[in-house]
Amino acid sequence: MEKHRIGNLSPEDKVKASNWKFGDMFETDPIRHPDLLACTEKPFNGEPRIELLTNDFITPNELHYVRNHLAVPVIDPKEYVLVIKGKGLKRHKFTLEDLETKFPRHQVVTALQCCGNRREDLHGDRRIFISPHWVIGAMSNAKWEGVKIRDVLEYCGVDVDGIALGKVEEKEEWKNVQFESYDTDEAGTSYGISIPFDKVIDPFGDAIFAFKMNGQPLPRDHGYPVRAIVPGHAGKCSAKWLHKVILSSEPSKSSYQRKSYCHFPQEVDFEGVLSKWNPKEISSGKTIQELPVQSFVCNPPQNSIVGVKDATDIPIKGVAWSGGGKGIVRVEVSIDGGKTFTETDLYKPIKERRNHEWSWTQFSKRIPLPEEVQKRLKKGETVKIDICSKALNSDFNVQPETMEPYWNPRGVAINHWYHVTLTLDPNREKGTITRLPDGDDFGNKPSGGQFKHYWGHHGWTSDPDHQTDPRANKAPEAYQT
Amino acid sequence: MEKHRIGNLSPEDKVKASNWKFGDMFETDPIRHPDLLACTEKPFNGEPRIELLTNDFITPNELHYVRNHLAVPVIDPKEYVLVIKGKGLKRHKFTLEDLETKFPRHQVVTALQCCGNRREDLHGDRRIFISPHWVIGAMSNAKWEGVKIRDVLEYCGVDVDGIALGKVEEKEEWKNVQFESYDTDEAGTSYGISIPFDKVIDPFGDAIFAFKMNGQPLPRDHGYPVRAIVPGHAGKCSAKWLHKVILSSEPSKSSYQRKSYCHFPQEVDFEGVLSKWNPKEISSGKTIQELPVQSFVCNPPQNSIVGVKDATDIPIKGVAWSGGGKGIVRVEVSIDGGKTFTETDLYKPIKERRNHEWSWTQFSKRIPLPEEVQKRLKKGETVKIDICSKALNSDFNVQPETMEPYWNPRGVAINHWYHVTLTLDPNREKGTITRLPDGDDFGNKPSGGQFKHYWGHHGWTSDPDHQTDPRANKAPEAYQT
Repeated sequence: MEKHRIGNLSPEDKVKASNWKFGDMFETDPIRHPDLLACTEKPFNGEPRIELLTNDFITPNELHYVRNHLAVPVIDPKEYVLVIKGKGLKRHKFTLEDLETKFPRHQVVTALQCCGNRREDLHGDRRIFISPHWVIGAMSNAKWEGVKIRDVLEYCGVDVDGIALGKVEEKEEWKNVQFESYDTDEAGTSYGISIPFDKVIDPFGDAIFAFKMNGQPLPRDHGYPVRAIVPGHAGKCSAKWLHKVILSSEPSKSSYQRKSYCHFPQEVDFEGVLSKWNPKEISSGKTIQELPVQSFVCNPPQNSIVGVKDATDIPIKGVAWSGGGKGIVRVEVSIDGGKTFTETDLYKPIKERRNHEWSWTQFSKRIPLPEEVQKRLKKGETVKIDICSKALNSDFNVQPETMEPYWNPRGVAINHWYHVTLTLDPNREKGTITRLPDGDDFGNKPSGGQFKHYWGHHGWTSDPDHQTDPRANKAPEAYQT
Repeated sequence: MEKHRIGNLSPEDKVKASNWKFGDMFETDPIRHPDLLACTEKPFNGEPRIELLTNDFITPNELHYVRNHLAVPVIDPKEYVLVIKGKGLKRHKFTLEDLETKFPRHQVVTALQCCGNRREDLHGDRRIFISPHWVIGAMSNAKWEGVKIRDVLEYCGVDVDGIALGKVEEKEEWKNVQFESYDTDEAGTSYGISIPFDKVIDPFGDAIFAFKMNGQPLPRDHGYPVRAIVPGHAGKCSAKWLHKVILSSEPSKSSYQRKSYCHFPQEVDFEGVLSKWNPKEISSGKTIQELPVQSFVCNPPQNSIVGVKDATDIPIKGVAWSGGGKGIVRVEVSIDGGKTFTETDLYKPIKERRNHEWSWTQFSKRIPLPEEVQKRLKKGETVKIDICSKALNSDFNVQPETMEPYWNPRGVAINHWYHVTLTLDPNREKGTITRLPDGDDFGNKPSGGQFKHYWGHHGWTSDPDHQTDPRANKAPEAYQT
C-alpha cells in the first residue's frame, strides 16, 4: 500500500478521521451550552433549564431553546440569497447586504414556543413517542432585529397598505406566505412552512426577516444569517436559515405544515394513520398557527430541596405567555397542588399594543406556608409540596387543569397546569436550593402528576420523526462560554 | 266626591289604572316572546330556549337574548341624536337620517354573548347571586346593518387610515371609545361602557352604529333606533340606544365598566368589597372586552325524554363561538359525561376573515349509542345519559372541564363544559322529544353536575345588581308574533 501513500495525517486530522462516521450530516453543528438540555442530539433540540428563565426578562442567546428539524446548514453570508416570488409578482433576490441596507430596521421582543412543548406529558400511558419530547422549556423570550416582511413585499410590488386598509383586494393566490429554508434532509428536501398573508400585511404584526438576536448576529442554531420571526405564532412559523418566500394560494405542501404541526382529533390513530403520509387521511388535522395560553413555575427548580429554616413563606417565580398577541391579565399559583390559588405580581418591562403582545410575562410572589405545613416544619419534618400555576389571557381563556381530555395524537398545543414538586427542609438555611442529581432522568424533570413513567425508561416505536435516542443529557465537554 | 268628577274612565283605562303602580319605570317596556325565558323581569333579561337556537343559523329577532340594565327608553326617531366628541375633536351631532344617508352601509353577522352567561353555575354553594343569573342561553347570532364607526370618525376629522397603518400616531387622549346610552336609572345615570380605540380603527373590525337587525329596524329591546355593534367583544360593549360617543384617555367611569363586567381574583370578597363601590379596592378587576371559547349542546333539549325505539344512534346539535374573532376549529361531543368524545360536523354558511370570525359555528353529529346502552334499551329499560361538548378555538384554547378552579366573584367569562342530561326511552318512537314540565324550575334548566341547587329555590342576598325576583317564567299572555 506504501506506493499509494499521498501524505501523512497531522495528529489533529488523525483524531478527526478516527471519529469520523459515514454520512453524519450533523458533524458541523455548533457546540451548545450545557444548560441547554438535549431532547435529541441529531438533529439538536434543546430546552434551557427552566430555573434560568426567570433570571432575565430576555433569554440569553445561548440559553434560548433550539428546535432543529435537520442539521444546521453552513451558509457563507456572502453567498446568502433570499428569493421572493409569487404568481403575478416579479421574482426578486436579496443578498444579506440588501436586507441590511435597503429597508428600515425594525426590532421586536417576542416569546417563541414550540408547538410541541410539554409533549413529554403525552408519553407514558398514551404511548405517543414523538421527537422532540420536550418536557417544559421549549419557550424563550428574545429581542430580534431585522426588516419588516411587509416593507420587503412592498418593494417587490405588493400594495401592502392598500390591502391592509381593505381598499385593495387581497389576492386569492397570495393567501399563504410559504417559507423554504436552507436546511435540507439527505434527499434534498428543505424545511418548509407557511403563515397567513394577513399576518405579514398587518402594520402592527411585527413579522420580520431577522438578522440579529439580542443585539448579536443570529447564532447558527437560530438561523444565521437570516430567519423569519413571526410573533404570536408557534415557533415553527419563524423559519430559520430562510431561503425562499413564496406567495401562494396553497399552504406549504411540506409534511411539517400538513402533518407534524397539526392538531388531530383523538380518534385518529397515530401509529396507523399518522405514521404514514397520506394527505387524504390526515385532512382532519388543523394546522397550528397561534398557540393557547401557557404558564409554568420555574423557581424553585422542579424536584429540588428548598431550605426553609425559620421561613414562613416561599418565593415562587415563573413565566406566562399566550399566542396570537393576547396578553396575560393574571397568573395565580398554588402550593397545595391546585386546591387554592394566590394572585401573583406580573412583570413586563416593555409596552405593547393590545392584541399585539408578543413578549412573555414573568410572575413572582412570596406565598405564605399554610399553618399545617409550618407546624410540621417546626417539628423538624421535611414536607413535600406540589406547586402549579394557571394563567388567564386577555380573552379570558384559561389553562385546563389536566391533560387527559385534551391530548392529541401529534402532541401539540399542550397547556394544562404544570406541576412542580418540592421538598421543604427546615434543617437547611432559608433560601438554599439543592437540586437532586439528574441521574438517568432529564434535567427539567417531567411535569408532575400527569403520567406514570419517565421517558428515559421507555423503548422506542417506529415513529418516523424520531431520529436519535434522546436520553442524552451530557454537557458537551468542549463548550466554552 | 261626585262634584269633583271630571269624567268617566273608559273600560280600557279602568284596567290600566287598576294595574298602574307608582314609579314603575318598566311600564313602557315592549312585550316579549314566550320562548324568551326571563331571568329578571324588571329590567328585562331573557334567554331563548336554547333548543331553538339550532333551528336557524341566524337567530330570529324575537328570540335573540335580551340583556337590559334599565328600562327600555322611549325614543322618538325624529328626536334621536348621536353626539360624537373628544379632546381636540370638533363636537358632532348626527340624526338618524344623517347616519342612514351620509355613510356607506355596512353589514356584519356576529354572535353576541353576555359576559355573565352561565353565571347560574356560580350560584348554589358559591352563594354568589348576581342578576341576571343566566343559565346558558345569553348567546345569539344576528345580521346587523349600519355604518362603520371608523367612517363616522373619519368624517369627524380622525385620520383613521393613517392611524390604522401606524403612519399617524394614536393619540393618548383617544385610547378609549366611551359609549353613553339613552337608558337611565332613576337618578338620571345612563348606561355607559367603553372599548379600545384600536377596535374601531381596524379596517376589518366591523364595529358599526347599527340601525337594522336581520333586515328590520332595531327592535326596541335591541336598541331602537341606533346601537353600537362591536363584534368579537362581550355583549356589554355593543351599547344599545346609543346617545354619545366620547374619545377619551380614560375608560368609562361607569360601574358597568369598572366593576360589573370585571374579572376578579377569587380572593376578592364579593359580599364585602364588591357590594360596595370603592374604586381603589376593586382595582384588581380586569375589564372584559373579548370572551373565551364557548360551546353548548342545544338539542335534544336539556332534561328531556328522547324516544329511541329501534335507534342505534342519537343526533346532537349545538353552537360554539369564541371571542376576539377567533374561529372554531373543532367541536367534540360526549354522551358519557365527558369520558370519550367524538368530532362533530361544523356549519357556518358565511365566509369570514381569519381572526375576524364574529359569527358562531353550529355543530351536529349522530353519535352511536354504546353497546352497553343498546343492551339495556333492548331490555325495555330507560337509560339516563350525560351529554357535553368541548370546542377548540383557532388559538387552540380549550374549554375547561369544570367550573370550580375558574369561578370568579362577578361570575363572568364562564366556559366550562355544559352538561345536558337526557332520558332515553326505548318505548317511545325514535326521534320524539318530550320536555319535562318546567314547574318551579327554569326552562333551560341549570347546567348539569356543577352545583347542587336550582336557583329557583334560593333566597336572595343584598346584591345591589339584583332588582326583581327572577323566578318569573310565565309567558306574557299578550304576546303576539
